[in-house]
Amino acid sequence: MSAIPALLRERVRRPALLKKLAQAEDLLHHFPNGAYIGWSGFTGVGYPKKVPTALADHVERNNLQGQLRYSLFVGASSGADTENRWADLDMIERRAPHQVGKSIAKGINEGRINFFDKHLGMFPQDLTYGFYTKDRKDNRIDVACVEASAITEEGGLICGPSVGATPELVQMADKIIVEVNTRMPNFEGLHDITTSELPPNRKPYLVMAPEDRIGTHHIPVDPDRIVAIVHSDQPDATGPNSPEDATSKAIAKHLIDFFSSEVAAGRLPKNLLPLQSGIGNIANAVVGGLVDSDFENLRVWTEVLQDNFLDLFDSGKLTFATTTSIRFSPDGFQRFYDNWDRYYDKLLLRSQVVSNSPEIIRRLGVIGMNTPVEVDIYAHANSTCVMGSRMLNGLGGSADFLRNAKLSIMHTPSTRPTKTDPHGVSCIVPMCTHVDQTEHDLDVVVTEQGLADVRGLAPRERARVIIEKCAHPEYKPILLDYFNTAEQICLRKGMGHEPHHLFKAFNMHKNLQENGTMKIDSW
Amino acid sequence: MSAIPALLRERVRRPALLKKLAQAEDLLHHFPNGAYIGWSGFTGVGYPKKVPTALADHVERNNLQGQLRYSLFVGASSGADTENRWADLDMIERRAPHQVGKSIAKGINEGRINFFDKHLGMFPQDLTYGFYTKDRKDNRIDVACVEASAITEEGGLICGPSVGATPELVQMADKIIVEVNTRMPNFEGLHDITTSELPPNRKPYLVMAPEDRIGTHHIPVDPDRIVAIVHSDQPDATGPNSPEDATSKAIAKHLIDFFSSEVAAGRLPKNLLPLQSGIGNIANAVVGGLVDSDFENLRVWTEVLQDNFLDLFDSGKLTFATTTSIRFSPDGFQRFYDNWDRYYDKLLLRSQVVSNSPEIIRRLGVIGMNTPVEVDIYAHANSTCVMGSRMLNGLGGSADFLRNAKLSIMHTPSTRPTKTDPHGVSCIVPMCTHVDQTEHDLDVVVTEQGLADVRGLAPRERARVIIEKCAHPEYKPILLDYFNTAEQICLRKGMGHEPHHLFKAFNMHKNLQENGTMKIDSW
Repeated sequence: MSAIPALLRERVRRPALLKKLAQAEDLLHHFPNGAYIGWSGFTGVGYPKKVPTALADHVERNNLQGQLRYSLFVGASSGADTENRWADLDMIERRAPHQVGKSIAKGINEGRINFFDKHLGMFPQDLTYGFYTKDRKDNRIDVACVEASAITEEGGLICGPSVGATPELVQMADKIIVEVNTRMPNFEGLHDITTSELPPNRKPYLVMAPEDRIGTHHIPVDPDRIVAIVHSDQPDATGPNSPEDATSKAIAKHLIDFFSSEVAAGRLPKNLLPLQSGIGNIANAVVGGLVDSDFENLRVWTEVLQDNFLDLFDSGKLTFATTTSIRFSPDGFQRFYDNWDRYYDKLLLRSQVVSNSPEIIRRLGVIGMNTPVEVDIYAHANSTCVMGSRMLNGLGGSADFLRNAKLSIMHTPSTRPTKTDPHGVSCIVPMCTHVDQTEHDLDVVVTEQGLADVRGLAPRERARVIIEKCAHPEYKPILLDYFNTAEQICLRKGMGHEPHHLFKAFNMHKNLQENGTMKIDSW
Repeated sequence: MSAIPALLRERVRRPALLKKLAQAEDLLHHFPNGAYIGWSGFTGVGYPKKVPTALADHVERNNLQGQLRYSLFVGASSGADTENRWADLDMIERRAPHQVGKSIAKGINEGRINFFDKHLGMFPQDLTYGFYTKDRKDNRIDVACVEASAITEEGGLICGPSVGATPELVQMADKIIVEVNTRMPNFEGLHDITTSELPPNRKPYLVMAPEDRIGTHHIPVDPDRIVAIVHSDQPDATGPNSPEDATSKAIAKHLIDFFSSEVAAGRLPKNLLPLQSGIGNIANAVVGGLVDSDFENLRVWTEVLQDNFLDLFDSGKLTFATTTSIRFSPDGFQRFYDNWDRYYDKLLLRSQVVSNSPEIIRRLGVIGMNTPVEVDIYAHANSTCVMGSRMLNGLGGSADFLRNAKLSIMHTPSTRPTKTDPHGVSCIVPMCTHVDQTEHDLDVVVTEQGLADVRGLAPRERARVIIEKCAHPEYKPILLDYFNTAEQICLRKGMGHEPHHLFKAFNMHKNLQENGTMKIDSW
């Protein structure tokens, strides 16, 4: 025991667990081919590093590619460094519900990885239902490998910068391996942890405001199921946040103006309602816009915070934020750790079942904002599959929030470039090639061109306002031509509620595939 | 006052309101052209009869077609007799969120009625947010015309066989007209009414079981806003329920077998979980199947009950049911009234915000079952628009339930007939022409051919099992050919997560339109 570093001894407050201290390399036997594995982690922070790396090293060293393949469940994306290596080494048989990384996306889209994406707020719950382990003994997974910043006297896990699906993965796993990471501070007190009960024994989440605590600081664990403790000192491999640009700033301005007008009309309180914002440069610009706005006493109810929420805290405008993950850049984490006391009382990390809970999102009246692949003229949105087929990252929490938010907002540039045309892709299309958010879910669509408020509008009204306000000028006539033609044909046939020229609806996409641009001469 | 019938005097327990007793014909001035109107009613029961009829008579008598047009909000469908007359007389400018009736569907699909459909659990909430009345003073509607079975001493409304959106319509209306219907019994005690608060002041719904009461027996109303009481003795114009047939019975059998196997696997309690079931012959057959099953102590959490739930009560297997509407046939209503005491303690009617609440549906772990227009091979479903364009009735509560249920089930015949082919339409298609339920929402698809359990399956796995288990034999090779071709093309291009042959995906629909059958020779 003399070899145990003092900092680790301080973090693992249940001495008996220190007897299970092991090197990652010695734990490979817990991972037979075909095992069902859970990792902690969400948006690339708080994931296990040592054990997955040791397994990858093992496969690489012994040329076991394709011979050790696993079903891998993680709250959302884990570290691209570990997971991409697993994908490269053909170690992933099945994966859910969200991922980030070139190699894993490649494995999915080339058919080697069976990936399914699911609402992030629903995934851990369905896991506890046994829906993803139907053929396993007692519907359980084999091993959960989770990162913690500390372990309590009772053996409870203190998470790090993300909670994600860790409570449910730990609940459903026969064996638990804990990587105690001493590179980060002990996050104790920053989490609010609840465990998932099965119906019919579920209770309400008694959260009436983002700051309401309903759980414990730690994840309760049966210590007997912890088979090993591994000491880790590796940081989360995050990168910088995407910078704002002119397009995202224009989108942010439209949104801030819209919020102001909603306040003036009596449809939003002066300090708005709890905000949900995603990852990416538009989300960055919106938060930046709020820093520069007159809004005060803002609250945040979201699934992930980026660096610029630190700016919003520092501006004095953000009173409280709750999330399941703080996905800061390396500089952002340093800033956060250096000013721990400033943020500590204003932040709570919850499990993704809670952060993405329809119950709470609806009750609080969250303002939900997300970026899609494409939106169609009737306000359906594609969040996942390019050309209807190629998976990007997965649904994430987009639909948890957009279905249940008081205001459901999709923000997107009106176009994206292709190799041959700076506006080769219109993000406003006649018909989405894949639908993740339905016309029944979206209230507002906004691009740098303008904002379409589609609340209470019939589909044909919606199409006109979305084309008028949101489409890029180069696509406006093309989309209007589609709509007018479809309307004329469908009304004549008495099927004009939501007019489509069904057999030409993807012609813009076809032209993109064949000619590198969605600009077509005629329908 | 001597002209007031004794039964009406007994029902209207606040005497001052009896002074507002009026004839429907004398209330037309409350309905100027362009007014925003709310009606009570849900699935064709509990809707106002006298005033809408008087207005229709007025328009017809004076040839005012097209000159008195209204925005009409009803919880779901109202009486086809009144609403269709309004549609025929061109009295509906705008309508939400659900409708039933040939004339109104015709008006919508020919472009005369601006209809938008919305989750029934969300619609009344968005109404209180002012989302549908953005251009009206204080975001309010002009007049709510609602049916009640009685009025309390405080002026509270006792609903009849449906609650629907009545609490919110009454809350948002400047003027209220109450039709007190003495044809039906006083329903007092059968309702559990909560009012909708605005965020950030919302509280949890403290419902942990279908029988939990959280509200009052009546809808609280400011009596000063009641401008008139109208005496009504007209029954709801319901028809008989759709009978079971061989197809629906086969579907029911697959489902009951599935429930049994889930119980055996430990994924459902022995008495299942609260059931949601829709309208139609498949729903009828499922309930019929439960009557004949070994399941006991069943509970129901749903939006509408049909006649055969009375059989389920009488079988002793149904312990409690909660709903927002009891849509019985005339015979069913008589049976219900004749045996009032038998059902009274086992039934609660709630507002549709509560019956269709994501919060409660998820907490209780409801088993949700619905019938779509079509389901695609990846388990998206179209609930609303035939050929992507022609509106049937609207989304209803399908997505409230299917998104939030523990088990989300779509049941459909594998085919439907056309004029020239008894199997001209396959209900399993390559790609839905309109998506209301996404692949992230459905757990089980079932036809008379079999049951596809798609939980935890990647899209390509899902396609195989849905085609194999659910497609009609005549369509199986066609669908398999589509999938195989799409898979081959997309995997080769590295975009094969959810393979689609995008520009041919609707070829079966095209053939249907051109040749009266979806059977095609090749892709």
